[in-house]
Amino acid sequence: VKRSSVGHFPCSVARTLDVVGEWWTPLILRDVFYGARRFEQILGDLGVSRNILTDRLNTLVDNEILQRRRYSDRPPRYEYRLTDRGSELLPVLLALMEWGDKWLPDGGYAVAVHKPCGHRVHGALLCEECGAVPSREVRFRPGPGAPAPPGTPAATQGV
Amino acid sequence: VKRSSVGHFPCSVARTLDVVGEWWTPLILRDVFYGARRFEQILGDLGVSRNILTDRLNTLVDNEILQRRRYSDRPPRYEYRLTDRGSELLPVLLALMEWGDKWLPDGGYAVAVHKPCGHRVHGALLCEECGAVPSREVRFRPGPGAPAPPGTPAATQGV
Repeated sequence: VKRSSVGHFPCSVARTLDVVGEWWTPLILRDVFYGARRFEQILGDLGVSRNILTDRLNTLVDNEILQRRRYSDRPPRYEYRLTDRGSELLPVLLALMEWGDKWLPDGGYAVAVHKPCGHRVHGALLCEECGAVPSREVRFRPGPGAPAPPGTPAATQGV
Repeated sequence: VKRSSVGHFPCSVARTLDVVGEWWTPLILRDVFYGARRFEQILGDLGVSRNILTDRLNTLVDNEILQRRRYSDRPPRYEYRLTDRGSELLPVLLALMEWGDKWLPDGGYAVAVHKPCGHRVHGALLCEECGAVPSREVRFRPGPGAPAPPGTPAATQGV
């Protein structure tokens, strides 16, 4: 079953999901942020089929999230590295991880670290006026000066 | 095609995706963070089938991310509100939105605002030692005192 594409919706959440929201893709990115670079490493970690992993990696390369580099000529072997664009997906993965750590806790866990100093890194929500704020005080609204996205509740209901 | 479940993996990213990673679910949550509460509002916004929307909302209620409340008895009608657990998914949605705003820009856009003061809210990565840091300086590692998750590259390769 092919999911419906919502990449044309006037919404950055939908467009981003169209690139990284396919099943397995966030877990592939998690492995790369964890240090995995090679096809066989990711394959062994996820237990996914070769065909699916190949498909997902190709999509990530086509979208310039990963860069493919040959590291062996005979046999030809490739590794995958994050582009700048790919690196900036880390907040998505970290937000998923921190929510799971809090609300679906289990034994094994990972942490995010600042590579230059080795200390832990946490996600935060920063208000331009108040500094760090909790999630329950934050909501989405149409942007200033922007037309409200057509069909959204905020546009049609004035919520 | 039923996707494989990875909810048993010792990884908070995988467990979280098992709850909120099904196709349509992040967009349903986006609508709720935007102010939509009623079935028909979300239905009209997403253009999803009634069956799928019902299924996804039931999953979100079963996992205590949304709370279902009857607002009309005749006919019976329900609205959906975020629980505390659900509200804390906002950083996931905001991270998806901010990545899309930067790397897949399009006309329509939304912003996150701090409800008490109305100012904009942005996602940030805060190092315990250095303060705000960029994504490219952050990676995942096994947690201090925790066994490395079995099968991860970091555990088997010492990356």
